[in-house]
Amino acid sequence: MMESFRRIAVLGVGLIGGSIAASARARGLGDRVVAFSPGGDAAEALELGLVDEVAEDPAAAVDGADLVVLAAPIPALPSLFAQIAPRLGPDAVLTDAASTKRSTIVAARQALGAGFPRFVPAHPIAGAERHGPAAARSDLFDGCLALLCPEPDTSAHAYRRIASFWSEIGARVVDMPAGDHDRLFAEVSHWPHAAVFALCAAIGGGARAEDALRFAGAGLRDTTRIGASSASLWADIVLDNREAVLECAAAFERELRAMLDAIERGDRAALLERFETASRWRRRLR
Amino acid sequence: MMESFRRIAVLGVGLIGGSIAASARARGLGDRVVAFSPGGDAAEALELGLVDEVAEDPAAAVDGADLVVLAAPIPALPSLFAQIAPRLGPDAVLTDAASTKRSTIVAARQALGAGFPRFVPAHPIAGAERHGPAAARSDLFDGCLALLCPEPDTSAHAYRRIASFWSEIGARVVDMPAGDHDRLFAEVSHWPHAAVFALCAAIGGGARAEDALRFAGAGLRDTTRIGASSASLWADIVLDNREAVLECAAAFERELRAMLDAIERGDRAALLERFETASRWRRRLR
Repeated sequence: MMESFRRIAVLGVGLIGGSIAASARARGLGDRVVAFSPGGDAAEALELGLVDEVAEDPAAAVDGADLVVLAAPIPALPSLFAQIAPRLGPDAVLTDAASTKRSTIVAARQALGAGFPRFVPAHPIAGAERHGPAAARSDLFDGCLALLCPEPDTSAHAYRRIASFWSEIGARVVDMPAGDHDRLFAEVSHWPHAAVFALCAAIGGGARAEDALRFAGAGLRDTTRIGASSASLWADIVLDNREAVLECAAAFERELRAMLDAIERGDRAALLERFETASRWRRRLR
Repeated sequence: MMESFRRIAVLGVGLIGGSIAASARARGLGDRVVAFSPGGDAAEALELGLVDEVAEDPAAAVDGADLVVLAAPIPALPSLFAQIAPRLGPDAVLTDAASTKRSTIVAARQALGAGFPRFVPAHPIAGAERHGPAAARSDLFDGCLALLCPEPDTSAHAYRRIASFWSEIGARVVDMPAGDHDRLFAEVSHWPHAAVFALCAAIGGGARAEDALRFAGAGLRDTTRIGASSASLWADIVLDNREAVLECAAAFERELRAMLDAIERGDRAALLERFETASRWRRRLR
C-alpha cells in the first residue's frame, strides 16, 4: 500500500535532498514538499521546481510535517536534530540520507530522546561527482539500493512508513545493522574515495601533472572519476567513519607493500599471484 | 599521401595486434595481412576475418613483408626480434605496440643491429579489459593517440611510412622520447593499474569480499574497472618499467601517509587541503 504524507520537510536540498524532494513531488507522495537549506540551495530548489515551499529555519520546515528527511552534510546533523526536536508533530516520522549511520544514530538519540523510535536511519546508494540542487533528478534513486539501519527500539510503524517512502521513490530497500553498514561502506566507498584522492593528489601535485592530463587514457579517467567529488563532503564522511576507514587503509597498505616487494625483487610469480587475486575478484563485480 | 604495403606481417594477434590487422584490412592498407601468433590466436584471427593468412613461424610471416608489426607480450619481444632479423627484406619497416619503450628499443637494437633504424617504436593508447582476437575491432584506434618514440638514428623514411600507417588506422600520432614516455606512462597507466590491483586484492582477499560485490556502487565499479585487466600482461608491463613504477608508488605512499596522519589526528583542515588538491586536478581531466 502506498504511503502518502501531508507535508514532507526536506532539510538540505543538494544533489540527494533535492532528488528526494523532486522524486516525492513527481510521484505525488506528499501534498506539500517544504525545503530548508542554509545558503542559496533552498531558493534554487524552489526555482527549479524541486519543492513547493521554502522555510526560513529547520523548525519552521518541520512544523506540521508528517515526514522529515534530513539530507544535510554529516557535521550539520546534530544541530539540525536539536533544532527540530521541539517542533516535531506527534505523527511525524523521520529518515536521513547520510553515508555513515552510527554517528547519525548517536546524534538522533541525543536530540530526540523519547522520540528516537520514530527515526529510521537510511543511506541511499546513489550519488555523482556533481552536487547542488541543479544536479538533482527525480529518477536518481530508480533501481538503487537504500540501506535502512533500524535500531532495536525503532518503531515498526515508522519503519513501515519510511521503507515504503524509499521504495516509492524507486529504491530497493535492504536492512543492515548500523555497525555492519559503516564497516562495509568504509570498504566499498569511503576508503576507495580516500585512496583515489591520494592517487590524484600525488599525480596532480607531481612534476608531470600537466602531461598526465594530456595523455591519460580511459583507464585513468574511470579510475579517478570519484576524485572529482566534493572534497568537503568526503572529508566529513571519512573523518566520521575514521576507525573503519583506517582499518581498510591498513589492509590496503599490507597488500601494497607485498606487491611492491615483489616488484622490487622482480618476482613475477609472486606479483602475478597478487594481480590474479585482484582480477578474479573484480571480474565477479557486475 | 597514403602509404600502402604489399604484405603486412602482424606478430601477435590479441586485442591490439588483431585490431591493427583488422584496421589495415578494412582500410586496404596492405595487399595481404599475415599473422603469426603462438597458441590458437592466429587461427582464431583467420577465422574471424582479421587477417588473410597465417604463418607457421615469425620468420615465415615476415618473409616478403614490407611492414612488420610486433604486438606480442613484452617478454616475447627479444626472441621475436631475433627470429625475424635474418629474414627481413631490404624494404621492410617495423613498428610495435608495447606499453613500455626503453626495453623494446634495447631488444630491437640488439637483434636488428644495422637494421635498427628501420624500426619505429610505437605505443597506441588503446585497450580494454577484454583481450584476445575475439575482442579485436577495426575501429579500436579511431581518435586514440599513438605515441612514437623515434631514436636519433631512426630512419626518416621508416618514420614517415610508420607514422602514416598509424594515422591511416585512425590514431593521432605524437612523438615523445622513450625515457619520457616510460616515466609518463608509469604515472598515468602502469602505476594506477598496480594501485587498483592492490585495492581489489585487499577487498577481494578480505572478510567482506562477498558483501562488497553485492553493495559496490557505480563509484567502486569505475574505480576498479581496470582491475579486471589481464594479470599476466600487467605483471609484465609493471616489471618491465619497474623503476618508474616504484617512483610513482613512493610519491603515492608519501601522499597517502600524510592523508592518513590527518585522518588519525582528526585534522579536517589538513585532510580537506589534500582532498582539494586531488579534486582540482581531477576536474581538469576531460
